[in-house]
Amino acid sequence: MSKEIGITTKKAADLSEWYTQVVTKAELADYGAVKGFIILRPYGYSIWERIQQHLDRRLKETGHSNAYFPLLVPESYLKKEATHFEGFTPEVFWVTQSGENVLSERLAVRPTSETIVNDAYSKWVRSWRDLPILINLWNSVLRSEITATRPFIRTSEFLWQEGHTVHATKEDTDKEVMLILEFYRQIIEDEMAIPVLLGYKSEKEKFRGALYTTTLEAIMPDGKAIQMGTSHNLGQNFSKPFEIKYLGKDEQVHYAWTASWGVSWRLISAMIMLHGDDKGLVIPPQIAPIQVVLVPIYFKAEQSEAITEKARTIAETLKKEGVAVHADFRDQYTPGWKFNEWEMKGVPLRLEIGPRDVQNQQSVLVRRDNSQKSVVKDNDLVKEVKKCLSEIQSNLFAKAKTSLEAAITTVTSYEEFKKALEGRGGFIRACWCGSTACEETIQNDTGATIRTLPLKDEELFSKCVGCDRAATKVAYFARSY
Amino acid sequence: MSKEIGITTKKAADLSEWYTQVVTKAELADYGAVKGFIILRPYGYSIWERIQQHLDRRLKETGHSNAYFPLLVPESYLKKEATHFEGFTPEVFWVTQSGENVLSERLAVRPTSETIVNDAYSKWVRSWRDLPILINLWNSVLRSEITATRPFIRTSEFLWQEGHTVHATKEDTDKEVMLILEFYRQIIEDEMAIPVLLGYKSEKEKFRGALYTTTLEAIMPDGKAIQMGTSHNLGQNFSKPFEIKYLGKDEQVHYAWTASWGVSWRLISAMIMLHGDDKGLVIPPQIAPIQVVLVPIYFKAEQSEAITEKARTIAETLKKEGVAVHADFRDQYTPGWKFNEWEMKGVPLRLEIGPRDVQNQQSVLVRRDNSQKSVVKDNDLVKEVKKCLSEIQSNLFAKAKTSLEAAITTVTSYEEFKKALEGRGGFIRACWCGSTACEETIQNDTGATIRTLPLKDEELFSKCVGCDRAATKVAYFARSY
Repeated sequence: MSKEIGITTKKAADLSEWYTQVVTKAELADYGAVKGFIILRPYGYSIWERIQQHLDRRLKETGHSNAYFPLLVPESYLKKEATHFEGFTPEVFWVTQSGENVLSERLAVRPTSETIVNDAYSKWVRSWRDLPILINLWNSVLRSEITATRPFIRTSEFLWQEGHTVHATKEDTDKEVMLILEFYRQIIEDEMAIPVLLGYKSEKEKFRGALYTTTLEAIMPDGKAIQMGTSHNLGQNFSKPFEIKYLGKDEQVHYAWTASWGVSWRLISAMIMLHGDDKGLVIPPQIAPIQVVLVPIYFKAEQSEAITEKARTIAETLKKEGVAVHADFRDQYTPGWKFNEWEMKGVPLRLEIGPRDVQNQQSVLVRRDNSQKSVVKDNDLVKEVKKCLSEIQSNLFAKAKTSLEAAITTVTSYEEFKKALEGRGGFIRACWCGSTACEETIQNDTGATIRTLPLKDEELFSKCVGCDRAATKVAYFARSY
Repeated sequence: MSKEIGITTKKAADLSEWYTQVVTKAELADYGAVKGFIILRPYGYSIWERIQQHLDRRLKETGHSNAYFPLLVPESYLKKEATHFEGFTPEVFWVTQSGENVLSERLAVRPTSETIVNDAYSKWVRSWRDLPILINLWNSVLRSEITATRPFIRTSEFLWQEGHTVHATKEDTDKEVMLILEFYRQIIEDEMAIPVLLGYKSEKEKFRGALYTTTLEAIMPDGKAIQMGTSHNLGQNFSKPFEIKYLGKDEQVHYAWTASWGVSWRLISAMIMLHGDDKGLVIPPQIAPIQVVLVPIYFKAEQSEAITEKARTIAETLKKEGVAVHADFRDQYTPGWKFNEWEMKGVPLRLEIGPRDVQNQQSVLVRRDNSQKSVVKDNDLVKEVKKCLSEIQSNLFAKAKTSLEAAITTVTSYEEFKKALEGRGGFIRACWCGSTACEETIQNDTGATIRTLPLKDEELFSKCVGCDRAATKVAYFARSY
């Protein structure tokens, strides 16, 4: 692989440049024709498909269904929930013409679907028998980004899922919000090996129109936090303007409660930054589209047949055992070139088969996460491959978990707060008075926001870090993506 | 089920009204907030997911990958292929503002992605080593429909897949076009039980910008044809303006060849019209989200436990065997109500379990397609269910195949042509001179177009049906959706 093709920047030297190179050179994404838009290339899309599979299975097992709602939302719908409208309007792409006709009302290209979904729900919900409604949408949303494009983090269009559910009571809605939060945790921690802090958003940071928002927050190597997903209890803030009402078992008419929740392809950005290294991507096995890449090695033409046959047999065997295996039989590239390419693409395990390996009924396994090599007998191969994949998964999570824990600094004064932030960054754990004004002052001064308030209140250990008044909550601050 | 909930129009009496009722009452789709747009509800979406699974598997097995391309296309891109631009412009929804800013160039909401995809391909293709590129996109496209909305047939937004491939030679491109046509045939005939005519489009009817277009055409009960899918060889018509060039093994630079192909949720409309009856939908087992619905029947509370337990056991067993089964344990509805609802929703097989069935270790199977009832012993259940599903699938296809064959009328004169068209409609098989002018005259006079020209030329049997000049081809004409 030529230098131009490989990653030329060290991750520790320039995370941002390294990130851009990994995304484009590993062919996850490319820049689109319009500023702010990206193309999700096949390799990137196959990672997104793995995320989809993991979440879709859990959603369907718990009674959720997928559906599709129209892309265009009338301006008047967006206006029905005032806070919501205010929040999204500056970012909306507006359709104003169809063919050469000027439309009588501007149509928003979906920035999120609460309004259009709740309008339909108001028609579908009549009685307690119709509840809950548990619908998920896999689609893309558009929100104009004026700052520099960053694939998977800051783009004017992104792929995501948005769940929209209707319930009879606040309690049912709370349960849904927490069920989804737990599913997100499973996808992010157990499948993507990214440890997160779970908690609530502050009033200032919550979703525009929500009663409350729960969140999952990860920390990146540059000390900045990244929001991985959110699950909102929307209270009756949407059911009232949209008139989602049901006749209860008590024969009375009630306003329903609604929830919404989403994760986007942003998950991929955190995976890249957290696990990647100077050679490129490192993809956790549970999310890897290719878990094992098989590279045949021969130098003389007469060796090729036996090696190819062995490679095919192994690929078949692994496939039958549910391992996502790819055998790279391309003639136009050398084994060394292939090693570099698949390392850059983050495939967790490489399996090399050379002439000696045919003779000795073995092959060579190389781990992407720590470069460990081992010679494995054919009889043990399936067992060893599975063991290795499982070890890589645990290893990546354990390393990341250690980093997360090390990235939390507990402070008791504003000086310590600023020092920690200017130093290595990360999460600053501090006591807070609960006031939005105080939160804003801290943000304006330092650029840090409250990323999350723990699900269970933690014990207070100082006055408010911002204003010295009595504290009411422990909060986790950080600068963020 | 009350009359209002069930289908109130006979299919034979008013196909259009019957269709609308089936779509909305079986909860496949609902009308959206903006005229021309529909909501694909969970039950409808789950049918679309089955279609996706069937096609996605075949595409992946043959080396195709999914990807995602931006929703917005600059006007200047659309203009690069002139015929293509002309064809789509009148239908395009234009984004002209983002937030309160007026954009310097109008952006089209994707009417199809050829231009934006080929622009990217021109960057990705350098050498013969990069070919073929085999990419598929699952997305939605928008084309303004000014006539009345008809769910799945005439809507301003529709879900589809669009494949875009690049090849070194015309021969490779031809092969791809035919491979995809065969996959479409398999989905439509083998999975959806809808027999089709395969063939080429005439010059007039081909895709705007294509070298040639292949198509699959089905016939509906009202004698109108419906285009089910198309697969195009785009020649070098896009590779030239977009500069998709590669260095060949011969060390020369060549323009590449491209193909594109698509099927949409329109497939669902044909399934509804072809197989449905006065009770509602009839879904072929291979495409049914629920293949077997299990309805427990008890009249006294003390019977419920044993019946519920038996139902659960059976549901588990069938699920393990790969049967898509749903057990309807809802208390608030009577068995009779449930029978009607699931019949309207077209579930292929109903399995009833009553008190006597527990005692006799049996259950009752009822087929949706012909209402046949049979008592099946528990030991034979799995085998019988699978046999029944397979028989329903064959039966639906055989019936539809007979209808298709009966719907073809061979004519040798324009009088016969018009008589057949005014009579029962269907496909009119006739000899044609090959001139677009003649084709247009026939269309203006009768409303019928050439739906397809057979893949293999059929033997000529008269002069041109339109103009009496010498014929060059046998063509299948019809009025169409």
